[in-house]
Amino acid sequence: MSTNPYIKQTFNIQKQSQLIRKDFPLLNLYSGDNQLHYLDNAATSQKPQQVIDAISDCYQRVNAPVHRGLYALADESTTTYEKSRKKVAQFIGAPQSEQLIFTLSATESINMVAQGWLKHHLNAGDKVWVTGMEHHANLVPWQRVCKETGAELCFIELTEDGSLDLDNATELYSEKTRFIAMSHVSNVLGVINPVKEVTQRAAQAGIPVLIDATQSVGHIPVDVVELDCDFLAFSAHKMYGPTGIGALYGKADKLATMEPMLLGGGMVDEVGDYESSWASLPSKLEAGSPNLAGAIGFASAVDYIESIGLQTIESIVSELTEKALFALSNINGIKIYGPLDSERREGIISFNLDGIHPHDIAQIAGESNVAIRSGHHCCQPLMRRLGEVATVRASFAPYNIEEEINALLEVIETAQSIFMPR
Amino acid sequence: MSTNPYIKQTFNIQKQSQLIRKDFPLLNLYSGDNQLHYLDNAATSQKPQQVIDAISDCYQRVNAPVHRGLYALADESTTTYEKSRKKVAQFIGAPQSEQLIFTLSATESINMVAQGWLKHHLNAGDKVWVTGMEHHANLVPWQRVCKETGAELCFIELTEDGSLDLDNATELYSEKTRFIAMSHVSNVLGVINPVKEVTQRAAQAGIPVLIDATQSVGHIPVDVVELDCDFLAFSAHKMYGPTGIGALYGKADKLATMEPMLLGGGMVDEVGDYESSWASLPSKLEAGSPNLAGAIGFASAVDYIESIGLQTIESIVSELTEKALFALSNINGIKIYGPLDSERREGIISFNLDGIHPHDIAQIAGESNVAIRSGHHCCQPLMRRLGEVATVRASFAPYNIEEEINALLEVIETAQSIFMPR
Repeated sequence: MSTNPYIKQTFNIQKQSQLIRKDFPLLNLYSGDNQLHYLDNAATSQKPQQVIDAISDCYQRVNAPVHRGLYALADESTTTYEKSRKKVAQFIGAPQSEQLIFTLSATESINMVAQGWLKHHLNAGDKVWVTGMEHHANLVPWQRVCKETGAELCFIELTEDGSLDLDNATELYSEKTRFIAMSHVSNVLGVINPVKEVTQRAAQAGIPVLIDATQSVGHIPVDVVELDCDFLAFSAHKMYGPTGIGALYGKADKLATMEPMLLGGGMVDEVGDYESSWASLPSKLEAGSPNLAGAIGFASAVDYIESIGLQTIESIVSELTEKALFALSNINGIKIYGPLDSERREGIISFNLDGIHPHDIAQIAGESNVAIRSGHHCCQPLMRRLGEVATVRASFAPYNIEEEINALLEVIETAQSIFMPR
Repeated sequence: MSTNPYIKQTFNIQKQSQLIRKDFPLLNLYSGDNQLHYLDNAATSQKPQQVIDAISDCYQRVNAPVHRGLYALADESTTTYEKSRKKVAQFIGAPQSEQLIFTLSATESINMVAQGWLKHHLNAGDKVWVTGMEHHANLVPWQRVCKETGAELCFIELTEDGSLDLDNATELYSEKTRFIAMSHVSNVLGVINPVKEVTQRAAQAGIPVLIDATQSVGHIPVDVVELDCDFLAFSAHKMYGPTGIGALYGKADKLATMEPMLLGGGMVDEVGDYESSWASLPSKLEAGSPNLAGAIGFASAVDYIESIGLQTIESIVSELTEKALFALSNINGIKIYGPLDSERREGIISFNLDGIHPHDIAQIAGESNVAIRSGHHCCQPLMRRLGEVATVRASFAPYNIEEEINALLEVIETAQSIFMPR
């Protein structure tokens, strides 16, 4: 065995990957020639048996109305729901559990802020800033609120390598700016944005910042106090948790001044025939019967991540990304988007091949059980900036193994041999 | 064995109940003296193993992004998601699958209609009608939209026995009325409202009607074409399905003219920097990553109901309700709310006992493993009309058995002996 520590580390990481992979029943359904190479993790992650079991256990043992009953089972469902909130809140460093609101999705979280907070704090002529790399979920809600209020939507543009061009966003911290919404990690470019740099200067200017952390929570360390953001949106299904549940973190003063987007049971205090008053946080922002199994599954995904260790997850994905970037950048006719420095990236790589439509590559990949994505990735404005209609995207999780990079490289070779024969 | 057909039927129904009960793992956790008498079904139902397995199976076999991938697994997830939509749509008789929108909850469904449709069709001076028995979820959203537009909120009041006093709602179908929102079945009174009578006259006057069917779908037959409602809201968790997913049905022209409440990925067609256009139905109203496991669990709950037969479910619950009503109405000092005729009721019974606070009854019940509810049941306006702060509520499901009525009766006896000693 080599004494080179790098090779040793690589060996350990590959071994860990294989171990982690065993936890994911869907991946283990396939073997041999049928092995599934799931490289579409930025769209949704697979779920470990631990999370699946936690959800089943909820229905088999804990299920009862939350926050309402006077019997033991209802006590337990309420306690478990609130413990789940605490677990997810602590995972992102929220000072108080009540600052973590369970929502349908990161999309709903962002819409809640747009309609429930920003709309009431915007006037005609004010400016709202986003970036040129936002997912539609972190763009279209701000388009609407700007249109409704007469505010102006402004874009932080990108540099050649897909970084935010903050130097040229000269009006970003101006007196007219009322809000900044930006992604922590781009779901196309994989680039990790300098969120802290923005929040620090924004705080000096009194401008609230919302972070779309859908691609970062569960993948790289996210601490809302350290980031000093005013709002943070993310979802469970991209971090090994269940579908249909997301979260919104907010600073206490921001959540306190937020109007609920959804009205109904559980979020009210007094209900008159014509007027109603709201309950305290977090209930105010969680109308309807709480999603008990979703919250339990979400917390269980956090447990799972913590049991492996976020650092281990990062190391594995970072190594896979570095290897894939290196191998891909040596292919003729490839164009890789975003910075090539793997230190500045999460495990997401978007690329195109000269003369081959991205859909053709994804199709050929699919035929080889390589699950990658082609399209605009819900980022049409970014595609226009890149001058592309679509890209191919491969994205990694800690259950991916090195041979899956090879499978991807073979797909590219096949595609080039079909569409670009020598 | 008796040859009295009524007794035979009773015997069969009780036997069926016992069989159904076997499907619900949570109920089978408890036995002997610890047996759980779960009579809080109007709050949330328990889940059969079949539904729990369907959710696990989703994560173990089908999980992948919906509507987006070009690989086999993504095809399967999309097909399964759309099959689930079709199943739920057909269950309520929706002419087209696209008329069934998956939402977070019935609460979200109603808010979507208030903010996305009614708000754009209301002017100052217009009237919106609700009833005096609505759940907060079917009241507070209309309060807000009326306040925002200057429209007037009007109430269909109740008769002495808890029926809708339609005869005295003289302005209900007037020229000024733009919308009617009413529950199919009251979650407190259990009364089944004459929805058809209202929709027929409303249709003649061109007034759209929304039905809150949270307590009816899965419990009694609901056919949207037969009911001729414009919108129908319901949720999975009250009909043996998962938490965190609801549905909105709408007539095609209504959904077509509805503005989406949530904006983001999946619901857009073209996204410019400042303007966006929407996708066609149903995507337009389902922003964000679809709740795949939720939809599968929802459809599985429908499968389960169909496997037992809605008629069987109705018969069991109706028999339990009739027996409970009969036994309860013979108790000294009891006041039962809503009509005493079990034909006009679903399996929900609210009552109070002279001189005993409902919370005390629920507390004593809890100590005997009888799960019943006390409170305003998210119906403060109804409580005011009843002249009560709270009621006790017992609600039945087809897995309930006759001895659970006896357990409830014993609880009442104990409460009376403690609080009202002779």
